[in-house]
Amino acid sequence: MKEIDEKAIDLHRTYQGKIEVNVKVPCDNAEDLTKAYTPGVAAICKAIEKNKEELYTLTSAGKSVAVITDGSAVLGLGNIGPYAAYPVMEGKQLLLKRFAGLDGWPICVNTQDTEKFIETVKLIAPSFKAINLEDISAPRCIEIEQRLDKELDIPVFHDDQHGTAIVVLAALINSMKLIHKDPKDCKVVVSGTGAAGSNIIKMIYEYGFRKIYAFDIDGNLSKENSQNYSDLKKDLLNYVNLDNQNFETLKQAIVGADVFIGVSVKGLVTKEMVASMNRNAVVMALANPDPEISYDEAIEAGAAIVCTGRSDRPNQVNNVLAFPGIFKGAIEGNARNITKEMKLAASIALANYITEDKLSTTHVIPSAFDEGVCDVVTKSVKDAIK
Amino acid sequence: MKEIDEKAIDLHRTYQGKIEVNVKVPCDNAEDLTKAYTPGVAAICKAIEKNKEELYTLTSAGKSVAVITDGSAVLGLGNIGPYAAYPVMEGKQLLLKRFAGLDGWPICVNTQDTEKFIETVKLIAPSFKAINLEDISAPRCIEIEQRLDKELDIPVFHDDQHGTAIVVLAALINSMKLIHKDPKDCKVVVSGTGAAGSNIIKMIYEYGFRKIYAFDIDGNLSKENSQNYSDLKKDLLNYVNLDNQNFETLKQAIVGADVFIGVSVKGLVTKEMVASMNRNAVVMALANPDPEISYDEAIEAGAAIVCTGRSDRPNQVNNVLAFPGIFKGAIEGNARNITKEMKLAASIALANYITEDKLSTTHVIPSAFDEGVCDVVTKSVKDAIK
Repeated sequence: MKEIDEKAIDLHRTYQGKIEVNVKVPCDNAEDLTKAYTPGVAAICKAIEKNKEELYTLTSAGKSVAVITDGSAVLGLGNIGPYAAYPVMEGKQLLLKRFAGLDGWPICVNTQDTEKFIETVKLIAPSFKAINLEDISAPRCIEIEQRLDKELDIPVFHDDQHGTAIVVLAALINSMKLIHKDPKDCKVVVSGTGAAGSNIIKMIYEYGFRKIYAFDIDGNLSKENSQNYSDLKKDLLNYVNLDNQNFETLKQAIVGADVFIGVSVKGLVTKEMVASMNRNAVVMALANPDPEISYDEAIEAGAAIVCTGRSDRPNQVNNVLAFPGIFKGAIEGNARNITKEMKLAASIALANYITEDKLSTTHVIPSAFDEGVCDVVTKSVKDAIK
Repeated sequence: MKEIDEKAIDLHRTYQGKIEVNVKVPCDNAEDLTKAYTPGVAAICKAIEKNKEELYTLTSAGKSVAVITDGSAVLGLGNIGPYAAYPVMEGKQLLLKRFAGLDGWPICVNTQDTEKFIETVKLIAPSFKAINLEDISAPRCIEIEQRLDKELDIPVFHDDQHGTAIVVLAALINSMKLIHKDPKDCKVVVSGTGAAGSNIIKMIYEYGFRKIYAFDIDGNLSKENSQNYSDLKKDLLNYVNLDNQNFETLKQAIVGADVFIGVSVKGLVTKEMVASMNRNAVVMALANPDPEISYDEAIEAGAAIVCTGRSDRPNQVNNVLAFPGIFKGAIEGNARNITKEMKLAASIALANYITEDKLSTTHVIPSAFDEGVCDVVTKSVKDAIK
């Protein structure tokens, strides 16, 4: 880990960051400037004044995504604020460009007041064709995304909520093909009900999973325990524990489970717990960088398919598989919102990217660098726009 | 003009704008991502959390300039709003990159409420090393710049106010060398006291001009007429009309003047008026794209030196000569503010760029494409930082 840190620091210091502005038109003499800048640029302003949609065909705004954070929940580092969050925004710009050819602009907002944050994003929205919310703490991130989604006329997407969920569902769809189980019969145990966990629950329910049980720091989500639940957590009871089980511990719940999905903390799951799962168990241990149980231990304990967030093991659940194509599809299709139909289409497209002959227990999801992954997601998302 | 419009539209449509994001680090495989993105990026976040200054050495924020407008006074087009203003912001990004190697990010703010605008800029400031305010209507732009300059710890510069003033002074410095007049003895008549005009007045006063007379839509600025003046206009009386002249018209004032500076409207000045000026008159007719009097007419009327905003005639007063180096110098010198000393240094450096053997009445200012112009401005600005 220390070695990676040093390499990362070295890389960032050498290049002074990861992205830059590039001029894509000729700019070698005064005549070039008359077209790219004054007086010619006035014609572009007038065309947009007449028809706002021309903003997206005549300027870089047509491919632009604001990558916006308040720095309140950055990676696993927590509330490190807007300045220290910047390198992650720049990373997102890099990924948007590398995988989808989109231009991301980094915006680190110096407030953690929800209303002020929403107002700020709304006020700067004219420059952008889409909004990528990033590293905002739960449950604020949910209200922020919902409000902006409703109040802005461009798509808003909080990757931490939906990105992981889309890739997790893709991996689950392919896992089901391999282990020949029906989603509606599978017992799924989810650990973590934050930004990622709550959306994983909703997405897999949407797809057809019905026997879902969720745990967070206060234990098993159940109607019985719900008197002090937040609205968000109460809402999750529409998706989990539909038969009112009263598990006292995760260890107890995981017995006989077909699927475990962890978006919580490292080392939470033991080999013994994995061994207690149903035959052909699927273990998705996604805590980052250190999973709930390591890939190797989960395999040793008898899991049929294991996914983690790590690039050094098979089946990496990586948001990069989803968000570039989600944004590209939404932008190319001129979507106003990113709907659940579009997200579901992305999961199915990601799953289907792996043809039957290539599908195996160590290959249930593509790699971000597989050629054409972003294209299939883009197309599926575009086709799912109403 | 129509031809330029068509060429500009064609250029913008072909390239979908003028600038884009470019990835400047290797990003070809999963290992590259471990350094540029997770998990390596966490080390960068932590380094910045520990020492905020590392933001500027380890990320693209170190070269970043927010190009921010509310769209209230765009070019000569007026209050066309934040969407239609975007192409100009993108043009500014192009110029910042082309001439200073800086990365500009376009922010079009959807409010013309001064307080809300200031608050928004303050809230998004963490992503940037400097703020370029653009195309904001006067007198709001003055309050906005002053407040942000005071309340933010990064330099704030409103090019429409100071850019033209810096280049005008550079041209005047060189003109004085050619016509052998002393600034303090020159009678200067300024037409227009908006964002540009008021700062031209202050800068040339700062340099040593003392006989300055100003006109705006209400006529000659004078103590006698000042009962209904705005604070801004009252302040100008510290710099203009110090001997309390009562000119009824511009035509009357310009008689015997050594210098005319117009930042007002086309066609305001006749050949007869130029002919009434002192010997070796300097005419700076900067209304854009059509000057107060054309270059050719002013020459025909006997002016010794004529400057306009046009690229198709000699002596183009072009903001591009100033702001790239201003920002580069301020950023490299880690300035907190852009002071009048820094602006004055830029004017002098721009004037001195033209060596005595190259100086002539048709060459009192460099062209933006002259090699090394930005470098000399950058150096002078850096050296002037206290």
